[in-house]
Amino acid sequence: MKILTYAICLAIGCSTILESKIFAQEKRSRARELGVTIGILPTGKWNAITDVPGVKVGHTSVISGQNVRTGVTAILPHEGNIFQDKVAAAVYVGNGFGKMMGISQIQELGNIETPILLTNTLNAPKVADALIDYMIKLPGNENVRSVNSVIGETNDGGLNDIRGRHVHAEHVLQSLTQAKSGPVAEGNVGAGVGTETLGFKGGIGTASRKLPASKGGYTIGVLVQSNFGGVLQINGAPVGRELQNFYMMEKKEPYKADGSCMIVIATDAPLSSRNLERLAKRSYISFGNVGGFSSNGSGDYSIAFSTNPACRVPYNNKNQIELDVKDIHNDELSALFMAVWEATEEAIINSMFMAEDMTGISNRTVKALPINKTLEILKKYNALNHDKLPKATTK
Amino acid sequence: MKILTYAICLAIGCSTILESKIFAQEKRSRARELGVTIGILPTGKWNAITDVPGVKVGHTSVISGQNVRTGVTAILPHEGNIFQDKVAAAVYVGNGFGKMMGISQIQELGNIETPILLTNTLNAPKVADALIDYMIKLPGNENVRSVNSVIGETNDGGLNDIRGRHVHAEHVLQSLTQAKSGPVAEGNVGAGVGTETLGFKGGIGTASRKLPASKGGYTIGVLVQSNFGGVLQINGAPVGRELQNFYMMEKKEPYKADGSCMIVIATDAPLSSRNLERLAKRSYISFGNVGGFSSNGSGDYSIAFSTNPACRVPYNNKNQIELDVKDIHNDELSALFMAVWEATEEAIINSMFMAEDMTGISNRTVKALPINKTLEILKKYNALNHDKLPKATTK
Amino acid sequence: MKILTYAICLAIGCSTILESKIFAQEKRSRARELGVTIGILPTGKWNAITDVPGVKVGHTSVISGQNVRTGVTAILPHEGNIFQDKVAAAVYVGNGFGKMMGISQIQELGNIETPILLTNTLNAPKVADALIDYMIKLPGNENVRSVNSVIGETNDGGLNDIRGRHVHAEHVLQSLTQAKSGPVAEGNVGAGVGTETLGFKGGIGTASRKLPASKGGYTIGVLVQSNFGGVLQINGAPVGRELQNFYMMEKKEPYKADGSCMIVIATDAPLSSRNLERLAKRSYISFGNVGGFSSNGSGDYSIAFSTNPACRVPYNNKNQIELDVKDIHNDELSALFMAVWEATEEAIINSMFMAEDMTGISNRTVKALPINKTLEILKKYNALNHDKLPKATTK
Amino acid sequence: MKILTYAICLAIGCSTILESKIFAQEKRSRARELGVTIGILPTGKWNAITDVPGVKVGHTSVISGQNVRTGVTAILPHEGNIFQDKVAAAVYVGNGFGKMMGISQIQELGNIETPILLTNTLNAPKVADALIDYMIKLPGNENVRSVNSVIGETNDGGLNDIRGRHVHAEHVLQSLTQAKSGPVAEGNVGAGVGTETLGFKGGIGTASRKLPASKGGYTIGVLVQSNFGGVLQINGAPVGRELQNFYMMEKKEPYKADGSCMIVIATDAPLSSRNLERLAKRSYISFGNVGGFSSNGSGDYSIAFSTNPACRVPYNNKNQIELDVKDIHNDELSALFMAVWEATEEAIINSMFMAEDMTGISNRTVKALPINKTLEILKKYNALNHDKLPKATTK
Repeated sequence: MKILTYAICLAIGCSTILESKIFAQEKRSRARELGVTIGILPTGKWNAITDVPGVKVGHTSVISGQNVRTGVTAILPHEGNIFQDKVAAAVYVGNGFGKMMGISQIQELGNIETPILLTNTLNAPKVADALIDYMIKLPGNENVRSVNSVIGETNDGGLNDIRGRHVHAEHVLQSLTQAKSGPVAEGNVGAGVGTETLGFKGGIGTASRKLPASKGGYTIGVLVQSNFGGVLQINGAPVGRELQNFYMMEKKEPYKADGSCMIVIATDAPLSSRNLERLAKRSYISFGNVGGFSSNGSGDYSIAFSTNPACRVPYNNKNQIELDVKDIHNDELSALFMAVWEATEEAIINSMFMAEDMTGISNRTVKALPINKTLEILKKYNALNHDKLPKATTK
Repeated sequence: MKILTYAICLAIGCSTILESKIFAQEKRSRARELGVTIGILPTGKWNAITDVPGVKVGHTSVISGQNVRTGVTAILPHEGNIFQDKVAAAVYVGNGFGKMMGISQIQELGNIETPILLTNTLNAPKVADALIDYMIKLPGNENVRSVNSVIGETNDGGLNDIRGRHVHAEHVLQSLTQAKSGPVAEGNVGAGVGTETLGFKGGIGTASRKLPASKGGYTIGVLVQSNFGGVLQINGAPVGRELQNFYMMEKKEPYKADGSCMIVIATDAPLSSRNLERLAKRSYISFGNVGGFSSNGSGDYSIAFSTNPACRVPYNNKNQIELDVKDIHNDELSALFMAVWEATEEAIINSMFMAEDMTGISNRTVKALPINKTLEILKKYNALNHDKLPKATTK
Repeated sequence: MKILTYAICLAIGCSTILESKIFAQEKRSRARELGVTIGILPTGKWNAITDVPGVKVGHTSVISGQNVRTGVTAILPHEGNIFQDKVAAAVYVGNGFGKMMGISQIQELGNIETPILLTNTLNAPKVADALIDYMIKLPGNENVRSVNSVIGETNDGGLNDIRGRHVHAEHVLQSLTQAKSGPVAEGNVGAGVGTETLGFKGGIGTASRKLPASKGGYTIGVLVQSNFGGVLQINGAPVGRELQNFYMMEKKEPYKADGSCMIVIATDAPLSSRNLERLAKRSYISFGNVGGFSSNGSGDYSIAFSTNPACRVPYNNKNQIELDVKDIHNDELSALFMAVWEATEEAIINSMFMAEDMTGISNRTVKALPINKTLEILKKYNALNHDKLPKATTK
Repeated sequence: MKILTYAICLAIGCSTILESKIFAQEKRSRARELGVTIGILPTGKWNAITDVPGVKVGHTSVISGQNVRTGVTAILPHEGNIFQDKVAAAVYVGNGFGKMMGISQIQELGNIETPILLTNTLNAPKVADALIDYMIKLPGNENVRSVNSVIGETNDGGLNDIRGRHVHAEHVLQSLTQAKSGPVAEGNVGAGVGTETLGFKGGIGTASRKLPASKGGYTIGVLVQSNFGGVLQINGAPVGRELQNFYMMEKKEPYKADGSCMIVIATDAPLSSRNLERLAKRSYISFGNVGGFSSNGSGDYSIAFSTNPACRVPYNNKNQIELDVKDIHNDELSALFMAVWEATEEAIINSMFMAEDMTGISNRTVKALPINKTLEILKKYNALNHDKLPKATTK
């Protein structure tokens, strides 16, 4: 196989530079910075999945020549060896037309033992193989002979030479080793480089919510790789219809309703895998708020995990049969559900606000959401500055 | 046991009269009649589950004295003996904190063999028993010794003396025998007499969608028994916040976030139980559009069935091992998904528009959605007359 | 409605007397007393579900005239108010052609809040209604407005006038109030009065296992209501074939392969609902060991609960958000799985060894397993006294 | 990476030769040839999954040096392009501690679009990548950008350098292109080269059943990759205990209870994915019959597919919305369930009878089931020649 030279760009760094050379575009901002305030709960400091202490994100954008528009995004639940110190986790399958890997073991055992990697559909196995390689070589994992790789994917084949499977082991390694906390790059980065959402360029998006003390004071962070269709709504406004770009509209070019959405949810709340699955399920409801309905071809999966020390599962239990764990009483979960619902909606919207135009395979261009026009529409529907409306109690 | 005298009112009939005597209220209209046009697809003739040919709905409102505010609603898939001529069906459990009956057999066998009855939580078994009685006495069912009653319920205990289990066999019988096609009564009728939704009076609501010929021309009808909480949105407008009545808002009285929602979906499209389950799942997404997030205490269930003759299952297969059936190709399902999503949203909104104030047990009153104020809010958010925006292709 | 007079017999009491008058039969003994030692683990003291401390069982046999052959069996997880002090629980649906009630809430919330009641198929709702009545009247439950009744059932319509629904509230109440620990009546008692298994009379059966200290020293108890078909095997011996009574054998009378099996599993091991579901699932494997394969018409359900104090869920959490709970490390579960597998097999065999001939509706008689002939067959296949073979470690 | 030289042996061919040079062993025969006749139904011609017309099996054994003991086994549902002409399919997850790939899409869409490949745990992604390569290069698949690879695996790390991931693309290709109908090699071949079962050498096994005309005359074939623990039973005889080699027995060396079992089920009966899932589930019951209980560490998965032309799903539906399909009436499924149950038991037993001693990594040897001793034990328990007992009707 002939090896091409890849422009490996880490997140905020070169990918932005590269693209800004190619396209003259509107300046991108996160939705909230432009007055799109979604929901009634406050955000965390970064309004990102990294607001959950310990969580890190790493992107490798794989962009090369005319055809390669893809990448990998890594989400690390904590700083240690995740295999040795697993975290309680769950998966909810919204629409299973996808190739997410690792589901059955997460559902059976209630935990994850690797970072979560997002990439493109046909690259999932290759990325999993690289992750296995990384995991079994970690200090302490010398005798590990079984690894449940957690890989999410969406299909970026509209912009990317997906059949070429251009994400390689070095990209995976880079996303893992350069992952960091703090602000998270969004839009056309990592696994979001080549995705499309609701008729426009999609990508990576993130958001977070912070519960009041009376509800436990927990933080909930969400990161999405958006790549699906529908009838775009932003904070209630019918933006897709105003822009005449939506599913089932009569157009010359067929609108791509299919695609997928990977949703990763982190929280510091102590939760059993049963309750984490319930959290994960609420992110499915958020599709409606942005105008998605989980079309047939959409692979919609949500992974939720808890970083709480009381929800860690040691690989080596040292013959200790019983584990002391914590869970939240069922009756106290609704606030967490609402937080997931809000944060997922905002993460998807952020992925579109931050993504820029992208031209890829077959010289096809997917336009970014037109920011100015969109803001006009939002104004028309009074969808800006909802933070001035009554909000949730802060007590 | 002492038998009380019940005011048994069939749907549109006496219940409306009864209530209009007690409360001076705004005139109720269905959302669409007031300009709240949800979605991009056209409705069926009645904008009701009864637009699916053969489907009938019967309500018995059980209203008596100060404390009894409940009822039963029956949905009949076709005019024949449903046990002898079962229909393909599926259930999706959104949030399983509920007492819906019949789920495991529907999931295992892929069909329903009784009408669907909706009632209150603690009355479900009594209603099931009455349904069994009705079924085994039907001509042709003389030897039937197993009946899978399909009973949905939500908790109307905020207005109704639910512990008294006031729905009796005669109410069930009436709902079944007086069920009819055509327009469907909504709001405070049948199983919706005592329910509350998103901070206001809830109840029964319905809506339908008709697909264009290129998508098969199928009809999808939805009926809901709404009884859940959240942060009310109507066609994108933040009505709950404007009216200062939503979950987690600081108030003197605690806001009831819990409750439940039963969703019944009918279609004439020929679908396997696998695909019917996928349809049912899409109604869960609609919660987001009205501001619900499936709180912990919500029993959220969707039942979908097909009335298509190619999806009937004869009780007596006359030793014929193989059945000729029809299904829709997976790739052609997205339009049906969208129809379910839209119709569920509109059905929930209709349940609120049509419900009137209700006073019940402990002299507690639940106010109806204030129509005029709501229309003002919708205007402020430009949420009216969206039928003037681009719509779905009609071809 | 005309009220019939019922011969209400509590368990060991009158039902045995009644039947011994009608039939001249072989003396019944539990399998183990006759040398049928199943598995490699030791039993608990009573070899019964009641070996799990706190668990009680109550039977009401409802036998009357020629046609009424049914009953109700109650399993109480602990002595307190189960609604106020719920126990971690899970359900596994083996084959969902049945009417078990309460499943979705158990799966969602991970606990049960009522005793478990077993009865006949068409009586399930009536029994549920009686259970609701009992629960809401318990001291402390004055404000309870939602009860998730856990009702299992199998179809005893081959011997019982099942269409008559002859189990009434007083039978339910009796099974609950007279439930006790210690030895458990088996065979034609309670919900097992009219059932048939593997070509012979079935009924209630129970067994238990005790793990060695190195595996935690836990007790696992199983109780079954057996009512299904197949090709009977006892401790590996092909008894059904030897007795020429099995599914798909050419016979004049059709062999009843269908039916159902309800399985209740109790343990004092501290387990999350996730792991309890895994336990429940293992009982499904036991079908094979007795020659069952979960035929189409079989409603096969397993309910598992933990009595461990660390797995209790208070109804009123007194605003405490987090719960301290215990679970067993996944890696330490295999011994518990084996215990469930063994105990379920033995419980089913016990149900057949203890059941006597029964004549019921339409003057139909179902013969009990012929003990002497069966022991001869077991001898021929060297299936007796396997306790002399190597066993599990006792350390 | 240094490339090793692999001895790539196709099935019956060189792998047997290679091994016969290394070990002096008992001659291996299939169980039935030695009088171990399991169940009451007749087998197909080859007593193999290939009795289902059109199904092919290909093995590549990857054996090299001291440490490499692994391979790949391919099962092809039909001779055509499976992506273009998908087959109805379902997966049942018995115990999800495994890395099987492709599950969620099979469950969502009800079909498979690739051959099924079995390999070792850590090699699953690499094998999937090779399968994707093969699929997208097939004539007609030039535009395919999404492939749901169906990969099963068990952990052969007790004999194989599993961390080295020694199954490569060429092995996968070979297994696919050399797959054939007719007799199937069993034991230490393909994905079974390094597996262990119930204390002895495991591997690939297969069996089939043929239903009588009154039950549709269908053929059911099963192929397993056996690699799990328990307390070995053969046709009811307690062989594991007699040979003092079972889970929880006191031994110097710890007994490996964990492992996994992949089960592939083919039939020519026309079945919906719902009913195929029910078939798949019955194979889980077979574990009990061989003495397995699906231990914590076991990844137990069953995949069932129908080769019936009425259950094919065209990739390109040519805008035809409705599909004419066939299903079997629920009431007629029990015979198929029994066939799966019997054939799975026999396939597992065959995998052990046919496997030979194997020495691998760390110079560890896993002994094969001692044939002569086992036959003596079977004789002692009268477990031979059960074909002389009454059998199923042949009409």
